Amino acid sequence: MSIPDAQIHPVATGAASETVAKHQDPQEITLWSGWFCPFVQRIWIALEERGIPYQYKEVNPYKKEKHFLDINPKGLVPAVEYKGKALYESLVLLEFLEEAYPTVKPSLLPTEPYDRAVARIWVDHITKNYLPAFHRLMQSQEPEVQEQARKDLIEAQKKLVAQVKGPYFFGEQFGIVDVAVAPWIVRDWVISENRGYSRSQAGEAWAKYAKAVTERPSLLKTESDKEHYGQIYGRYLRNEAQSEAAKAIRAGKQIP
Amino acid sequence: MSIPDAQIHPVATGAASETVAKHQDPQEITLWSGWFCPFVQRIWIALEERGIPYQYKEVNPYKKEKHFLDINPKGLVPAVEYKGKALYESLVLLEFLEEAYPTVKPSLLPTEPYDRAVARIWVDHITKNYLPAFHRLMQSQEPEVQEQARKDLIEAQKKLVAQVKGPYFFGEQFGIVDVAVAPWIVRDWVISENRGYSRSQAGEAWAKYAKAVTERPSLLKTESDKEHYGQIYGRYLRNEAQSEAAKAIRAGKQIP
Repeated sequence: MSIPDAQIHPVATGAASETVAKHQDPQEITLWSGWFCPFVQRIWIALEERGIPYQYKEVNPYKKEKHFLDINPKGLVPAVEYKGKALYESLVLLEFLEEAYPTVKPSLLPTEPYDRAVARIWVDHITKNYLPAFHRLMQSQEPEVQEQARKDLIEAQKKLVAQVKGPYFFGEQFGIVDVAVAPWIVRDWVISENRGYSRSQAGEAWAKYAKAVTERPSLLKTESDKEHYGQIYGRYLRNEAQSEAAKAIRAGKQIP
Repeated sequence: MSIPDAQIHPVATGAASETVAKHQDPQEITLWSGWFCPFVQRIWIALEERGIPYQYKEVNPYKKEKHFLDINPKGLVPAVEYKGKALYESLVLLEFLEEAYPTVKPSLLPTEPYDRAVARIWVDHITKNYLPAFHRLMQSQEPEVQEQARKDLIEAQKKLVAQVKGPYFFGEQFGIVDVAVAPWIVRDWVISENRGYSRSQAGEAWAKYAKAVTERPSLLKTESDKEHYGQIYGRYLRNEAQSEAAKAIRAGKQIP
């Protein structure tokens, strides 16, 4: 039997395919991507928001090209190739893009050290509370585990939105906290349609914040057609997905 | 019955008590500490390494003072008070100290963006692989879980040391990767004496690196007497500890 995830659509579609087409020329930065991956989308959004020139390369998870594996032996995406060397881990990459391109505006981090630390505290909240609850809610097959995960997710959203100045985390400036959570907001239709979730369960402030984030041009430009996500998330909903994140959640471990 | 952890020794002892005595005057930075906590020790080491003036305040986990809870409602340590506001999360605090005191040398991060990203990738490895294995090895009461945790820890150490230039991660400069892992190296006697671990199981390179780290003056200056750690780690070894990290490991969750 083939690995279920091997049948995913091979390339970006819809608005995202137009963005891909505009980023085919070699640049200092290469984004090694999976069009469907929320962790990749964080980096893709950041590149688009900040106007950093980049070349987009799709990594087929089952036919990884030799050059990619040479520079990035684990083969995970997102990876950024910079001057012939690979870096990975989405949150590390967000900080890297800030530091490697300090003069490209707008920055995704505030200016003051205190505010920068606050931003990182809330990114950490997304990592430790929001994402595990979201993934457990998608993948669990047991109603009582799903119900607890849904409650955990709502609580994580309420805590986060209590810090949001509006429309974005730090006010008018779309920043690193928004980037870190955005890919899981644009994918929340998966749990709305299948797990009894709705944005209003976390309150009107959350629904308003979520709407503002999903309407951001950098989000719209990096989204593929819903039907192709549907194919992928169907496997998550049946807990058949073979991604590293899916396997970790299934084993009760941290998302790697 | 009292909460087991309520009986811990209330203040730092040994070399650490001398360091505490030297840091009683008010400063721009207050370190809210638990003398026994490895996450606190990361910040304490960083402050000592970089010569940043700080006031040390011990937080009694069961008698938290009002001012501390006012600025830091969760009440967790380590916390840093900076101009009357609290920040927390040890890795966020390490980055904050870099950014708030950029001209205090030596920096714990390299200069080049690529190298800084590499440092953060390996700090992330410590968070996701090293610490959970160490804590599972201490807390688990089942021999087969302990054995798997010991293997996972050895693997995490081998992967890390393969990147160490020596004597420290980035060569001569003691840096953020060393700071992030050091508190769990100086505490490895707990698993050596009780869980069949020894440094040489991860190879001679690891044993050499571990020795270099534990002999660092900033480590020695922030260590209390072994007998008082023994009282605390006895509770971890019997899986009775009530810290947030201990409870998370017991529940099969991420260390918060």
